[in-house]
Amino acid sequence: MRLATIRLDDRTAAVRVDEDAAIELGTDELRDFLSRSEWRSDAVAADGPRHSLDSLDYAPPVPRPDKVICIGLNYRKHIEEMGRELPSHPTLFAKFSGALVGAFDEIQLPKFSDQTDWEAELGVVIGAEVRHASAEEAAAAIAGYTVVNDVSARDFQNRTPQWLQGKTFERSTPVGPWIAVDEGPPGSVACLVDGEVVQQADTSDLVFSPTELVSYISRIITLVPGDLISTGTPGGVGHARNPQRYLVEGNELVTRVEGVGELRNICKGES
Amino acid sequence: MRLATIRLDDRTAAVRVDEDAAIELGTDELRDFLSRSEWRSDAVAADGPRHSLDSLDYAPPVPRPDKVICIGLNYRKHIEEMGRELPSHPTLFAKFSGALVGAFDEIQLPKFSDQTDWEAELGVVIGAEVRHASAEEAAAAIAGYTVVNDVSARDFQNRTPQWLQGKTFERSTPVGPWIAVDEGPPGSVACLVDGEVVQQADTSDLVFSPTELVSYISRIITLVPGDLISTGTPGGVGHARNPQRYLVEGNELVTRVEGVGELRNICKGES
Repeated sequence: MRLATIRLDDRTAAVRVDEDAAIELGTDELRDFLSRSEWRSDAVAADGPRHSLDSLDYAPPVPRPDKVICIGLNYRKHIEEMGRELPSHPTLFAKFSGALVGAFDEIQLPKFSDQTDWEAELGVVIGAEVRHASAEEAAAAIAGYTVVNDVSARDFQNRTPQWLQGKTFERSTPVGPWIAVDEGPPGSVACLVDGEVVQQADTSDLVFSPTELVSYISRIITLVPGDLISTGTPGGVGHARNPQRYLVEGNELVTRVEGVGELRNICKGES
Repeated sequence: MRLATIRLDDRTAAVRVDEDAAIELGTDELRDFLSRSEWRSDAVAADGPRHSLDSLDYAPPVPRPDKVICIGLNYRKHIEEMGRELPSHPTLFAKFSGALVGAFDEIQLPKFSDQTDWEAELGVVIGAEVRHASAEEAAAAIAGYTVVNDVSARDFQNRTPQWLQGKTFERSTPVGPWIAVDEGPPGSVACLVDGEVVQQADTSDLVFSPTELVSYISRIITLVPGDLISTGTPGGVGHARNPQRYLVEGNELVTRVEGVGELRNICKGES
């Protein structure tokens, strides 16, 4: 089952995306919907107004999450090939929700950066409030998976010891198109720039799995419905290439997680 | 003028705190109130229900800000005495709003940390939407000042390269009691643990001033009414002492900014 938030003329609507149409779920966006205790069965049963698939304008699945938590280096092979030790704890950093754009929106390249880079990632969306979650509670608190590109302005990210300022530029981070619910484990993650594959890895290579991340973070703070966890990116980013390579105006960035979905975004300079 | 959010039996209320009473402003909390274009004159003119000062139960001035942005090392003398160079750019990191508590609430010491430390700071609250703000626009976008203690679990903060997980523990960060609006420049910042002064510095010693911080951050992302910027802490934290010293259950933490206000919080173990 695929759940999304779409933009209509004068409002947004949470929808279930079926093979032939999108069916409204009765709330403006998915955060409110996921806050219902019976959201899974409500989503299956929903029978609201229908929208043709070719007309859909996707907002981020949860346009204004309470929290966006990103994970640092989390792909085993990539860490090992860099000669580093596997981390004992996940590296967490934040992104503000103003950074998020929809699955097919333009990505805004920051005006003051000339080192804007890609980071294809598997996203995890929370579907129940959890605190101090066991592995089992953590698994049950995951609503489903989505696709994220944690687009990063490397010059800003590396200017100070903390990465936030390179990670949260306005309208820089595409998410979506939907939350894949109960559709099986996600497969490979890939990133393409103008059709060229620049990242490709299997999400089973994650050091800290989605369930472990939810459990770990919930020991620090309460996770609530709609919270987004972006699980980290594999090797192949532009900043680590020789020569280095960055996004420029007009680039088409495709981000794909097998079994989840695909983002397709054009890079646009900030006016 | 002092603006606050107080808790009542069955609701919260934004108030103006006068010398003899708190006067309701007509919204549930200050974020909505600060989103009005005429909030300054509305606040002066407000004449709603009154509450006696000795009965006030202070929530954080803005209980759920869109953004909480904290600043790393930002006191000149402290940086110089550590033999470091002054930074060319402010270090920014985030805190989630679930970390915030009111001016006289208990601080929850994280269950899994035994290195919870104090960081007295001047807080800046945003009163107008700004993006790419000039110095003048940045100054005009500041609603006023408040007091923050950026309580930090050092073991979690230093476990990975990113500090977030040591900075955003649930119910760890007191803010308030109010926003001091047009009350002149803030003076010294001080922190006391069980009556002993452990930090004391002048806010005029900040490397990046409130106006510079607002301008800088607004080049990255739009600041909106209610956003909180915590401007960094001076020397004297427990982790840098010899021997190191941390907060324990029962400690009374007092945080004071001259010309702004005072927090008074008892530390409580997480149950």
